[in-house]
Amino acid sequence: MGKAEFPVLQVSALRWENGSLVLLDQTRLPEEEVYLVCGEHRQVAAAIRRLAVRGAPAIGVAAAFGVVLGAQEILARGGDLQTELPAVFQELRSTRPTAVNLFWALDRMARVWQAQGRKEPAATVSALEAEASRLFREDAESNRRLGEFGAALLANGMNILTICNAGALATVAYGTALAVVRAAVARGKKIAVTACETRPLLQGARLTTWELLRERIPVTLITDSMAGFVMQRGLVQAVITGADRVAANGDVVNKIGTYTLAVLARQHGLPFYVAAPFSTVDLAIPEGSRIPIEERAEDEVICWQGRRLAPTGVKALNPAFDFTPARLVTALITDRGIVRNGEWEKLQQLA
Amino acid sequence: MGKAEFPVLQVSALRWENGSLVLLDQTRLPEEEVYLVCGEHRQVAAAIRRLAVRGAPAIGVAAAFGVVLGAQEILARGGDLQTELPAVFQELRSTRPTAVNLFWALDRMARVWQAQGRKEPAATVSALEAEASRLFREDAESNRRLGEFGAALLANGMNILTICNAGALATVAYGTALAVVRAAVARGKKIAVTACETRPLLQGARLTTWELLRERIPVTLITDSMAGFVMQRGLVQAVITGADRVAANGDVVNKIGTYTLAVLARQHGLPFYVAAPFSTVDLAIPEGSRIPIEERAEDEVICWQGRRLAPTGVKALNPAFDFTPARLVTALITDRGIVRNGEWEKLQQLA
Repeated sequence: MGKAEFPVLQVSALRWENGSLVLLDQTRLPEEEVYLVCGEHRQVAAAIRRLAVRGAPAIGVAAAFGVVLGAQEILARGGDLQTELPAVFQELRSTRPTAVNLFWALDRMARVWQAQGRKEPAATVSALEAEASRLFREDAESNRRLGEFGAALLANGMNILTICNAGALATVAYGTALAVVRAAVARGKKIAVTACETRPLLQGARLTTWELLRERIPVTLITDSMAGFVMQRGLVQAVITGADRVAANGDVVNKIGTYTLAVLARQHGLPFYVAAPFSTVDLAIPEGSRIPIEERAEDEVICWQGRRLAPTGVKALNPAFDFTPARLVTALITDRGIVRNGEWEKLQQLA
Repeated sequence: MGKAEFPVLQVSALRWENGSLVLLDQTRLPEEEVYLVCGEHRQVAAAIRRLAVRGAPAIGVAAAFGVVLGAQEILARGGDLQTELPAVFQELRSTRPTAVNLFWALDRMARVWQAQGRKEPAATVSALEAEASRLFREDAESNRRLGEFGAALLANGMNILTICNAGALATVAYGTALAVVRAAVARGKKIAVTACETRPLLQGARLTTWELLRERIPVTLITDSMAGFVMQRGLVQAVITGADRVAANGDVVNKIGTYTLAVLARQHGLPFYVAAPFSTVDLAIPEGSRIPIEERAEDEVICWQGRRLAPTGVKALNPAFDFTPARLVTALITDRGIVRNGEWEKLQQLA
């Protein structure tokens, strides 16, 4: 069917506007559509920490604009970029440990800064802004390419199981897992999505359903515990998830619950695809068990919007991510092509 | 270590008191400990429907007392048991479709009634009350025996993963899965529990943690999506769940999410035990795929305590149970002994 037009997106997680970073506050969805106008890098760091902006690619781009804001602040108060910008980088780096796109984007920004040498500070800020904008455009283009590659894997009539939100809200444009769905739909395939609600923070229930309903792509919500049931009943034909980091050997770290989906998919003979741009691949990490897994506050599990779900005094675990060994991954759908199970050395070639 | 004293229970899901059925309203836990005094059978039926009382064994006993209440009502208004009691049975039978204990207990009550023939109505009501009380005592004794059998399977230091609440709150006494834990603890073994929160209605978060905290048995809460993670990290050494119905071939229907735990346990080489009294075994059903699975309202998935978790217009699935094939069950722990995988014909012998 060849290349097709992607639909006009109904959603935008972040945009750079009049020298500020405008973020859709995803903690308020689906109840309210509230935009945060960040004029300072600390606001961006806080937004990343509290998941107002989330999703590996979106975090990377947001942090890049955070650097631009930090540089603007230093200039505005007559400060010195050389001595003061490292603290801006440090603050943005420390926001979240797992998604590698954050570090990758900050490294790109650092290289641009270093290449400026002793130029006019205003020129340096312009160069940083240009690089952040380039990261933004590259992510949009990467979403599109990744979607096109992945769409070829989906047959007409498929129902795709996904977890968390690997959609428009996790990137600057079409998403990763959901870019594949969007591209297949754009090619005229009839595709439906089954969204795992994704406890504890319900990104599937709150965000994935929200963006798919806007585009009239059929979506059914399930609790995470229903994944086995829908596979057993033949209600889904493939799993596609995003990733927060992919190791050199093809191991994947993604939202908690992803590993369980991979085990279930294997058990039911269903393909388990991971859709991620190359900025999510960390060739410096030989295997996934070495990727740091963020542990978040117990209260995210024990409470919901201020109400307790469990008795006082209970202990809870709250790993935000889990690790899926490469052997359970049918293929990695990247913006540079598809890497199938057993061809992981291709990651080095594509890099 | 031989037979050990069970601890004094801190919890009672239901009791028969002064001619009324007193139910702990489990929908209000853990926030409030509220008791419903049911003087009419319709109140019992409503309590079962809305899960104020839940758990296969507890539902059976509650329904039996519902029959006693219905008979008392008919007598009090000068009605005729012969013509009016069938509607009471029918109302109680129609409350929930999956747990077989409900039908088993009502069948026992019906047999007692039929055996009464044309006796004094007051004598019939007494006989029904005696049978319901016998069902209550039998369940307590069954919990104890099942616990003793199962305790032998647990090694000192084990951490047991469970789902939903198969504890005191699901029975009249020590529970099923948690009776095994209690019996092992009573024998001096150090046992901890990891409780899956059990979406959508959070019986694990609200009920299992509540009853274990009261008895100071160590418990850690996880979201259902963390089950794979805790197994991968070696944080649990066995899974024990309850059951709502066991087919003649050893297939098990239990709370949604149980099947996923069974698949994960097999993948990690962990034992997957199902603890259930013989009243949960339905030898009339040859295999589990024929057991009816209750579909509950979508809103249980989409909302929590009146607040939406997902956007307006989203569809959701809400099967309350799922089906686990016998091949994934390491052993069934019953009140008549342990039935191991591959010995399912022993179910017929023990019956």
